[in-house]
Amino acid sequence: MAAPTGDIGLIGLAVMGQNLILNMNDKGFTVVAYNRTTSKVDAFLANEAKGTNVQGAHSIEELVAKLKRPRKIILLVKAGDAVDAFIAQLVPHLEPGDIIIDGGNSHYPDSIRRTKELEAKGLLFVGSGVSGGEEGARYGPSLMPGGSPAAWPAIKEIFQKTAASVNGEPCCDWVGETGAGHYVKMVHNGIEYGDMQLIAEAYDILKRGLGVSDDEIADIFLTWNKGVLDSFLIEITANILKFKDDDGEPLVGKILDKAGQKGTGKWTAVAALDAGVPVTLIGEAVFARCLSSIKEERVRASKIIAGPQKEAFKGDKQQFIDDLEQALYASKIISYAQGFMLMRETAKELSWNLNYAGIAQMWRGGCIIKSVFLGDITAAYNKNPKLESLLFDDFFNKALHKAQPGWRRVVAQGIIWGIPLPAFSTALSFFDGYRSEIVPANIIQAQRDYFGAHTFRVLPGKENAKLKAGEDIHINWTGRGGNVSASTYIA
Amino acid sequence: MAAPTGDIGLIGLAVMGQNLILNMNDKGFTVVAYNRTTSKVDAFLANEAKGTNVQGAHSIEELVAKLKRPRKIILLVKAGDAVDAFIAQLVPHLEPGDIIIDGGNSHYPDSIRRTKELEAKGLLFVGSGVSGGEEGARYGPSLMPGGSPAAWPAIKEIFQKTAASVNGEPCCDWVGETGAGHYVKMVHNGIEYGDMQLIAEAYDILKRGLGVSDDEIADIFLTWNKGVLDSFLIEITANILKFKDDDGEPLVGKILDKAGQKGTGKWTAVAALDAGVPVTLIGEAVFARCLSSIKEERVRASKIIAGPQKEAFKGDKQQFIDDLEQALYASKIISYAQGFMLMRETAKELSWNLNYAGIAQMWRGGCIIKSVFLGDITAAYNKNPKLESLLFDDFFNKALHKAQPGWRRVVAQGIIWGIPLPAFSTALSFFDGYRSEIVPANIIQAQRDYFGAHTFRVLPGKENAKLKAGEDIHINWTGRGGNVSASTYIA
Repeated sequence: MAAPTGDIGLIGLAVMGQNLILNMNDKGFTVVAYNRTTSKVDAFLANEAKGTNVQGAHSIEELVAKLKRPRKIILLVKAGDAVDAFIAQLVPHLEPGDIIIDGGNSHYPDSIRRTKELEAKGLLFVGSGVSGGEEGARYGPSLMPGGSPAAWPAIKEIFQKTAASVNGEPCCDWVGETGAGHYVKMVHNGIEYGDMQLIAEAYDILKRGLGVSDDEIADIFLTWNKGVLDSFLIEITANILKFKDDDGEPLVGKILDKAGQKGTGKWTAVAALDAGVPVTLIGEAVFARCLSSIKEERVRASKIIAGPQKEAFKGDKQQFIDDLEQALYASKIISYAQGFMLMRETAKELSWNLNYAGIAQMWRGGCIIKSVFLGDITAAYNKNPKLESLLFDDFFNKALHKAQPGWRRVVAQGIIWGIPLPAFSTALSFFDGYRSEIVPANIIQAQRDYFGAHTFRVLPGKENAKLKAGEDIHINWTGRGGNVSASTYIA
Repeated sequence: MAAPTGDIGLIGLAVMGQNLILNMNDKGFTVVAYNRTTSKVDAFLANEAKGTNVQGAHSIEELVAKLKRPRKIILLVKAGDAVDAFIAQLVPHLEPGDIIIDGGNSHYPDSIRRTKELEAKGLLFVGSGVSGGEEGARYGPSLMPGGSPAAWPAIKEIFQKTAASVNGEPCCDWVGETGAGHYVKMVHNGIEYGDMQLIAEAYDILKRGLGVSDDEIADIFLTWNKGVLDSFLIEITANILKFKDDDGEPLVGKILDKAGQKGTGKWTAVAALDAGVPVTLIGEAVFARCLSSIKEERVRASKIIAGPQKEAFKGDKQQFIDDLEQALYASKIISYAQGFMLMRETAKELSWNLNYAGIAQMWRGGCIIKSVFLGDITAAYNKNPKLESLLFDDFFNKALHKAQPGWRRVVAQGIIWGIPLPAFSTALSFFDGYRSEIVPANIIQAQRDYFGAHTFRVLPGKENAKLKAGEDIHINWTGRGGNVSASTYIA
């Protein structure tokens, strides 16, 4: 048998897998394609991959035999059991130093586990986020690889050449240890949920509140797309709003308002709750999809629950549109600040070394949330790699200061009109809470000590003989019993 | 050996366990007390339980031997491994039909598992929520038992006599199968988080916004406590605000504003995300505690992020206070409606038969969220046991209608002042979303189809030859490629 010539193998010939193969082939790499239903391999070679250097394999053995060492095999199969099943099939045919890459939408705890399991066998594992949908996979996705650090030098060239690039910088870098790649991809998806919800809310208040037509909203978005909001999602929303059905009506108005969710936004919200980080905007975005999904209940409710009296808008229309741009921008800053807070906290817990400037650069192009904005985040973290929060960066601090008055006017207007703006609102609540030296959690601590003897601590500067710094203090609030601190939280 | 005389055994002599024993003793039941550290048994008998009918046991064997059959043993130990360890110790000494009751703050999946495991051994299991803190345990808690239905007749008398009662009705009834008792207790705790957050926000806007003193706020709360907000938490908050430190200053102002959380609120938020039910208020309440806990970061942020210019309040002060009462009431209705939506959805998924009127009655007294309001919820579900949502009930529908203008004014005022009201705001957003026949999720569905070929459905009434009812529709938005629907969600 001839010496193997394959640079990388790919398992899973759905549209994402096919496009990623063609992309890697374009960049000069020899890809060996395999699929469980092998007729798909033949069809792919005879059609989409015709005339390329792509090789086919009809068994795991053949796939492995066609790859140069250290072998690199990327899985693009359904997250979950299928990944473990293919890993189990591959392992007996691999040799120390070979690399299995999972490019699916796996949950990061699985990638943590798989890294450990494969490293124990002398193999290397990479769990890589792949973003950008079909187009991205074909012409340059955002790639977020993490796992066994020793794998990075071997895959770096393929990954960085295959990924999108912005200003000559690839949208791919090493993310971090074990599950870090899929974790960062998860946060990316959560942020994507948030961005989409913010755009939907902007559309809603323009349409239902200000009474602007879909065509006009498209023009507003195209204008925004030349400024601080310049991004893929704003651009495609403008395209969507311009898209007409055969009868000349905007198609968007004929789409059922029930948003699906496949769980990655939810994963981010759950991870935030687990880590104790207030990622409120993504939380509200996920819940907004849940609320959209009970369409029939909403329809019934709309018939029996009245809103406020419809009031004509008395202000300046263009001023409101400008305010809305600022509201969307400010809310987006908050959402990304929350996402980076979550990554920072998790990195601390799991001892990952995350490169925040690199993460923003990976999201800068190739993926769904790509935007000019992410270039500013990269700049902020390049200026100060230990930046505590995006809100502490001078650029974003000034941007929020400028946006603040318009942001408040928009959220208040939504309240007057009765148009829900859950993501805009929660962003503003977070902003006002974050910049509050004192929040009313003292009330909550007092209540917990009152009814459950849960103790509290003293506010710095208010210490006295009874209220000592660093001590868990319990007060006998009622004068009866209750001097014992609760050992378990039974409330 | 004499015939056993114990009606029920209790393991775990921390303050909750001790108080529950004394309570059951008061009601005429003979309780056998056991603790792993047996010196605690002796100390309890020699002190708190002196002169009562409480018996002690110094081993599991002795405990079991002292109980009448079917034996009933309630565990009040730390949730988690300790519960399983005691169950394992008890099982060899028990006989078919004996009942193990877990009265700790267990997570409901554990109670589902334990019900199955013990029933497989011929034993019965009850996972019971116990609420009301030390006081409740001593003088009448709210008890929420679920698990093996066959256990209920055997424990009903003890449970209903031990529980609190309101207007002669016990705050205890059978909740449902397997983990239903602990599930309902979890939702109770989540709602408790929400109620506490709402009160904290009301306090905050009165203090920081309107400039009212702690004493005056106490008086406002005492007034509210005579109306629709009449509840334990409002009452104790007034007491807290009146409580003076030795120097005559309100103690509450000296309490560190970092709220702890032991996870049951978080469990509810995660359960809501898992079930896809928009329980936004509890979510925001949990996140508000998370934000409070990064005190040092907030202090630093407060020095470099300015809020809006402080504007003097131009309106009528008493009107604002009345508006705030309505805002708190309306938000509370939303929170409970969301909690009941969650229980309804979970009951559907897990085939539990939940008695919603009974659940509201169980919370009506004895527990932390006890209130007059819960009587109105009981009435609503008694009137219509199949009620789709509290918002469809005539009483609450009218209450929200009345509250709406003031609620909107309060949230808008918080925005102007820069005082965060995350729970009030999210409740209002939910209200406006829930009563919206159309929400802008059509934009999100169009985006998902545009970048990921995720398909959408047609809005009823807008069907045509291309947009067929009940079909997953994909549009070639860009005119290039992309006629394949995505089989996996890679975004």
